[in-house]
Amino acid sequence: MYLLSEISTKAPGHLDKKEIKKQTEELLEELDSLQYLLYAEAKHAVLVVLQGPDASGKDGAIRKVFGSLNPQGVRVKSFKEPTQEELSHDFLWRIHQHTPGKGLIQIFNRSHYEDVLVTRVHKLCDDETAHLRFNAINNFEEMLASTNSTQILKFYLHVSKEEQEVRLKERLEDPTKHWKYDRKDFTESNLWDQYRKMYEDVFRFCNATPWVVVPADQNWYKEFIITQTLVNALKALNMKFPSLPEKPNN
Amino acid sequence: MYLLSEISTKAPGHLDKKEIKKQTEELLEELDSLQYLLYAEAKHAVLVVLQGPDASGKDGAIRKVFGSLNPQGVRVKSFKEPTQEELSHDFLWRIHQHTPGKGLIQIFNRSHYEDVLVTRVHKLCDDETAHLRFNAINNFEEMLASTNSTQILKFYLHVSKEEQEVRLKERLEDPTKHWKYDRKDFTESNLWDQYRKMYEDVFRFCNATPWVVVPADQNWYKEFIITQTLVNALKALNMKFPSLPEKPNN
Repeated sequence: MYLLSEISTKAPGHLDKKEIKKQTEELLEELDSLQYLLYAEAKHAVLVVLQGPDASGKDGAIRKVFGSLNPQGVRVKSFKEPTQEELSHDFLWRIHQHTPGKGLIQIFNRSHYEDVLVTRVHKLCDDETAHLRFNAINNFEEMLASTNSTQILKFYLHVSKEEQEVRLKERLEDPTKHWKYDRKDFTESNLWDQYRKMYEDVFRFCNATPWVVVPADQNWYKEFIITQTLVNALKALNMKFPSLPEKPNN
Repeated sequence: MYLLSEISTKAPGHLDKKEIKKQTEELLEELDSLQYLLYAEAKHAVLVVLQGPDASGKDGAIRKVFGSLNPQGVRVKSFKEPTQEELSHDFLWRIHQHTPGKGLIQIFNRSHYEDVLVTRVHKLCDDETAHLRFNAINNFEEMLASTNSTQILKFYLHVSKEEQEVRLKERLEDPTKHWKYDRKDFTESNLWDQYRKMYEDVFRFCNATPWVVVPADQNWYKEFIITQTLVNALKALNMKFPSLPEKPNN
């Protein structure tokens, strides 16, 4: 079980920012080749789940890590507050529609986990319902993996309360970040401890596909960890370019 | 465990066709009121799964039983051979998109069960994959029930081989049934015993939500059983018309 307070939100002190950035660039090139291979082979699907508090750097991670990949094989879906139509269905209904087909990388910017996070913090979901959902989530992820070769990678962007405050203030002060400003973010940041507790429940009960807790106070380290995790996961698939269906000279 | 060969495909001999038809008409009126209440209350969803061999009367059942209900609250989805896009996803992907929202009755004309029936008969799905799918189906149906109050009713239209042959021949001879003729149906009917075996596996392994085996050689009895099952299931939901959100004179 994770206790978030015991995990650092910062890069290990001995690391050299410049060196890590160089390594990230190399990994991104490798990721580009691996994504091409994933698309060509079309045997596996990859689902990347990005969760984290407001201003933990989800959008930035998507821009940096996935921004250089071929968009034909990469899709992003941001999950916002559900519509009336979505609320009339089970909570996985809108999620399942966006799971990746074979050959594709799908990024979820927020996800089905919001239904056991924000809803619990705001008392829209009681403990019993939360546990039904934990169970449903585990079965759902297991089904994607076992019946459609879906590799699921779940990242929690672990930012400190202090760093979050700095970033939320930037949204007020920097004109290029005004579009991200939302009065509600400040209200939500007051619920910091409750969010932490609910995240810890998620890590405890929905860990069949393990979570990667990414120290996210420094963007360069966050990007390095995500890219490295992706490269390693894709390499482990042992993919091959398909050969011709039959020899052309036959 | 069901052995289909031990279950009659015919109505019990003592039943009077005229009397049963009258009862069905009364039940259909009751169903109409219950569907209106389901729609108004919008607390439960109803999913009707219709399975059965070719010419077992699925289309006819839909026309007769659901044809008089308000189409605003009733939807039908027929699942045919999957597209390339559908095949690139897990087998429940295309199914989940059509599950009912609260207040609605959704009818599946064929369903996710085809992925452990026709695919197995034609050796497109091995036993190991079939058991992964049985498990996925059970979890999926349980999730719909527990997280979205979905009442699932699964009907197997149980027709005899002899009756099926009569009906398939009618498609050749009756001009109003030519549009239903498909050369493949005759090939499939040669696989009768294998389909039976695969259905028996379904009844054995996907029975958490029980199957209703409907004797289907006579349409009047088939329609009676389906309507009666629906009426009883809807009654058991103990639905109420919602009261006004606040008293109008307040």
